[in-house]
Amino acid sequence: MNELFDRDILSGEQFTLDEIQTVMGVAHDMRRRVAHGTHLDNCHGKVLASLFFEPSTRTRLSFETAMLRLGGQVIGFSSAESTSVSKGETLSDTIQMADQFANVIAMRHPRVGSAHEAAAVAVRPVINGGDGIGQHPTQALLDLFTLQQELGDFDGRTIALVGDLRHGRTVHSAVEIYKHFNCRLILVSPEQLMLQRPMVESLHKSGVAVTETTDLESALSASDAVYMTRIQKERFADPSEYEKVKGCYVLNRELIMRTNSRIVVLHPLPRVDEISTDVDDLPGAAYFRQAQNGVYVRMALIAMVLGKA
Amino acid sequence: MNELFDRDILSGEQFTLDEIQTVMGVAHDMRRRVAHGTHLDNCHGKVLASLFFEPSTRTRLSFETAMLRLGGQVIGFSSAESTSVSKGETLSDTIQMADQFANVIAMRHPRVGSAHEAAAVAVRPVINGGDGIGQHPTQALLDLFTLQQELGDFDGRTIALVGDLRHGRTVHSAVEIYKHFNCRLILVSPEQLMLQRPMVESLHKSGVAVTETTDLESALSASDAVYMTRIQKERFADPSEYEKVKGCYVLNRELIMRTNSRIVVLHPLPRVDEISTDVDDLPGAAYFRQAQNGVYVRMALIAMVLGKA
Amino acid sequence: MNELFDRDILSGEQFTLDEIQTVMGVAHDMRRRVAHGTHLDNCHGKVLASLFFEPSTRTRLSFETAMLRLGGQVIGFSSAESTSVSKGETLSDTIQMADQFANVIAMRHPRVGSAHEAAAVAVRPVINGGDGIGQHPTQALLDLFTLQQELGDFDGRTIALVGDLRHGRTVHSAVEIYKHFNCRLILVSPEQLMLQRPMVESLHKSGVAVTETTDLESALSASDAVYMTRIQKERFADPSEYEKVKGCYVLNRELIMRTNSRIVVLHPLPRVDEISTDVDDLPGAAYFRQAQNGVYVRMALIAMVLGKA
Repeated sequence: MNELFDRDILSGEQFTLDEIQTVMGVAHDMRRRVAHGTHLDNCHGKVLASLFFEPSTRTRLSFETAMLRLGGQVIGFSSAESTSVSKGETLSDTIQMADQFANVIAMRHPRVGSAHEAAAVAVRPVINGGDGIGQHPTQALLDLFTLQQELGDFDGRTIALVGDLRHGRTVHSAVEIYKHFNCRLILVSPEQLMLQRPMVESLHKSGVAVTETTDLESALSASDAVYMTRIQKERFADPSEYEKVKGCYVLNRELIMRTNSRIVVLHPLPRVDEISTDVDDLPGAAYFRQAQNGVYVRMALIAMVLGKA
Repeated sequence: MNELFDRDILSGEQFTLDEIQTVMGVAHDMRRRVAHGTHLDNCHGKVLASLFFEPSTRTRLSFETAMLRLGGQVIGFSSAESTSVSKGETLSDTIQMADQFANVIAMRHPRVGSAHEAAAVAVRPVINGGDGIGQHPTQALLDLFTLQQELGDFDGRTIALVGDLRHGRTVHSAVEIYKHFNCRLILVSPEQLMLQRPMVESLHKSGVAVTETTDLESALSASDAVYMTRIQKERFADPSEYEKVKGCYVLNRELIMRTNSRIVVLHPLPRVDEISTDVDDLPGAAYFRQAQNGVYVRMALIAMVLGKA
Repeated sequence: MNELFDRDILSGEQFTLDEIQTVMGVAHDMRRRVAHGTHLDNCHGKVLASLFFEPSTRTRLSFETAMLRLGGQVIGFSSAESTSVSKGETLSDTIQMADQFANVIAMRHPRVGSAHEAAAVAVRPVINGGDGIGQHPTQALLDLFTLQQELGDFDGRTIALVGDLRHGRTVHSAVEIYKHFNCRLILVSPEQLMLQRPMVESLHKSGVAVTETTDLESALSASDAVYMTRIQKERFADPSEYEKVKGCYVLNRELIMRTNSRIVVLHPLPRVDEISTDVDDLPGAAYFRQAQNGVYVRMALIAMVLGKA
């Protein structure tokens, strides 16, 4: 049985390098088989509970597509309003209920730590699809998968992480994954939204070369790939502070052509205006391919925790 | 063909003892086969319309899991807002539409009698998943199934029904089912929320020994199982009346250990605070197993009305 | 490969007579096979993205039933609120995301032209399930299928189109389909809601005999079938104008028996009060059969664009 069998997927830091590489290998295999039109039935007779307590399209549909393409089935909900949560049911009880119905649970919830709470009461494996500003480990794994696909190899590469590094759960999980690799990170953010000190220190200790800056242009010139994230207005106490920084972190075609025309561009999506649409047809614009890779990585994770890889 | 083939499942009172026992037998078989990892395809090529006009998680997901585990498929909606009801469509028209698409219809609707209305216009079998304060027959059957599983046998047993017995549709359907058995019922409720007189009389006539009380403690001491239900604040004209009674009907570990440590505890869920979480790990706490049994009983009912048991 | 393979289905005017007849033939075959209880697996391993940005039950459930009855699977959403649109994502980005997950996209969106926008960015086939007051081509095809089923043959027949012909997307698409046939149309509407001049002229040019009137009674007497649509109050600048016309266009049993007792009655549904329920059991009341035909026509279209007919 594989090393993730019957385990929860809760945060980036839970993975060893070996486990990460196994997931990448299985995801690569899933990609190849779907591309060849193979009908998989690894998860025939299995049911995924897709429990989204807050709005999501990409992550939810990606998990559901993954389970369906494995030959399994899906139950669930896409917002808390139409559920028993509106009757006062606790997260713990909702999870224990789903645990009776399904073979594996994927969930998103606004509260940090909610996925750990769920895993503590569920017998079935729980996969964290985002817990507030906490973690989003499947996103971090699909980002890595995409960087490996786009760059050929991830080791020795320089990645610029741009935007709200303080609150971005995607970034928090990514940092835990990148630690295992011989890469360089350039952290680009306004000062209020810098990555928390413990995470930066932890990267240093792991041997990852980290530079912090507020300057996107120089970061682009020095990087093989840039990972854009949304800066959310509501994170700023002073709206004028928001206005000052938001313009700096818009990636457009002109900026890319001027600084680094071959740079690989990732974004967890949805974007609002961090990446102009004139970037979309550049060869390095990888964010929609990244969304597709999410299906393969989640196929790998679901199949592995169910022992069906 | 089985005796439920092509029939509607609308209320507890429609069942003969023979039919109830057949459903229990088929549900038991479903449970065994799912536990053995058997992939059922009884309902391959069949479609369930899951029409939930008001919020539900447990009942909806339970019906949908049941159909998927039978190898069938599911269409539907989980709230009236995103449907044509918001354009003024009548229940009758919505049902006649679903009747064209699906092979069987499961529905929940806030109006008493709605499931009967639906059954009157639908060609396909209609299964009532709750019609306001009316009936909830599949819940009553899964409650019985759970009592039989937990107690070994239901005949000769004493069950305390606790909470809002006046408005609880679960209780209304259960009473109709329990009539067929040689059991004793202790009805525990505040005076405003006592079971309606005709139902009590009907129980008496059927030979069920019924005691009514407002005292939970004595009922626990005298019962083999306790069936808790939510008391809903909005049912009381005078809020101070609510405050008086709600505290009496909270089941906690201390109370159980003091009165009847081996009592089997059921609840249709969701609970708010009628059962403290410190009860959850007592061996008699059967409410989550009860939720799982709901899948087997609904598998039995769906398969039977489709002639695929 | 069939002539619709890998093509988008966006408007009524895109079809040649040959293509229309092929769709009718495939839909007829689907109908026969479903009726015989054949389990189709044409689309096994394929995924439909069912993206409904505004409320719908009939069209959404019909598309989803079609895909499931073809052996395929479905992902999607039934309202914009629980999606990333609420985070500011553009239609184009949402479509490009779904394009990575699914094999075919069915969508409804309130903006005219939205389906064309989607088709411009999607690699996968896009099927328009209604774009504001624009087009609704699958409805027009299922209307034609129903007329052929009910009347035996469509050529030489007279059809009365009744209601809001100005804003009705169903009518707009139907007109483009009917052009190819040797039929007569009687357009019945209040003056404010008459079919746009270019569409009327285009019908004339195609050799379709068109009469326009405000009088429903005479139209019924002269027609083989009547196609009712909702008149929406909000389309009138002056509410008293609405009050004047709405009564004229209510079809009830008495009116039908008096004018044309064998007339075939269609309606895209949902109805509000345009057709009294006392019409429902007349032999010509075809609107619920029409809803069922929608499944067969959409099975045909999905299978054809995927090359699996």
